[in-house]
Amino acid sequence: MKLYSMPSSGNSYKVRLLLALLGRDCVIVDVEESSAELLAAKAAGALPFGKAPVLHLDDGRMLPESNAILVWLGEGTRYLPGDPVARARMLSWMFWEQNQHEGVIAVRAALHSYPSRAHLATPERMAELLERGHALLAVMEEHLAGHDWLAGDAVSLADIALYAYTHTAGEAGGFEMARFPAVNAWLARVAALPGYVGLSG
Amino acid sequence: MKLYSMPSSGNSYKVRLLLALLGRDCVIVDVEESSAELLAAKAAGALPFGKAPVLHLDDGRMLPESNAILVWLGEGTRYLPGDPVARARMLSWMFWEQNQHEGVIAVRAALHSYPSRAHLATPERMAELLERGHALLAVMEEHLAGHDWLAGDAVSLADIALYAYTHTAGEAGGFEMARFPAVNAWLARVAALPGYVGLSG
Repeated sequence: MKLYSMPSSGNSYKVRLLLALLGRDCVIVDVEESSAELLAAKAAGALPFGKAPVLHLDDGRMLPESNAILVWLGEGTRYLPGDPVARARMLSWMFWEQNQHEGVIAVRAALHSYPSRAHLATPERMAELLERGHALLAVMEEHLAGHDWLAGDAVSLADIALYAYTHTAGEAGGFEMARFPAVNAWLARVAALPGYVGLSG
Repeated sequence: MKLYSMPSSGNSYKVRLLLALLGRDCVIVDVEESSAELLAAKAAGALPFGKAPVLHLDDGRMLPESNAILVWLGEGTRYLPGDPVARARMLSWMFWEQNQHEGVIAVRAALHSYPSRAHLATPERMAELLERGHALLAVMEEHLAGHDWLAGDAVSLADIALYAYTHTAGEAGGFEMARFPAVNAWLARVAALPGYVGLSG
């Protein structure tokens, strides 16, 4: 099993975090943003949708998309709920993460972090992303004020998926995390899971 | 079972299409864009993430996000592959649909269709979305040139999910569909499935 992973990307970090929590071995191939390694991987056809992460299975088949990789790795573990409704609601959060959360929270952080995108970080765009991001964090806050975890009664892949870009939203994205105490308490619960590793860990 | 559905939205149509293909009964509650019904449903807490579609289960639990609803409805049917790798690759396409395809293909169509968004349809934005949309359709074309369906050897939820906004991409979004013959052949295969209904059917 081999993971093409972008070290600075939350989507790739999700997969590395789950691998660490599960104690699973995997060869990691770093393909950093704007690197020669990324271009080479694309040219070699190793990234079917043109982006990382992609998991290469031992039989040669390729699995792109971070959240699909999480589901694949999570099968048969405590991170994939047995209750069908909890499992479906886990997927609701994971699709929401890719459709809503990532396009705002991660994008604002990326506009800060990657020099190649600085020209897109106009004051209007950054203000709009700040307001939309706070609204998205408020959706999480409302749920987490009454629940320890996002789906069902226990930690699941939804928590791993949402943790990745939420835990850096303050420092990297400039979001006012002090407004979301239940989100912060949940971030601490994820970071306390046995086997946890940080983004650069 | 009750579905809060936006009649003009591809995300809601996905669910209505799968219900029809499965021959399943479901009460449909229409909540059209900018309607009083949509505002009332939001105010009543019927739309957990603030948008349609949402499936209300008979026990009162709510399931948001179109693709999570597809997985829930698809359990135990021919639309959810038994082979674990095919199932994971089905989810890859479905996450890609929400993260990449919908944000370009559906957004360009919405900028055309909804008068409330016309001020966002600048020539630069529409040109950028056109170019990005053609690149995304080319990803589908490359796969479908060698396969009848998106995941595995048979129709799956990935085909339903991607069909919704792809089948209107030409007329509603202004994309040049003649450039993608394998995509057009696949659209015809989906439309020929027993029980198929159209967007307004």
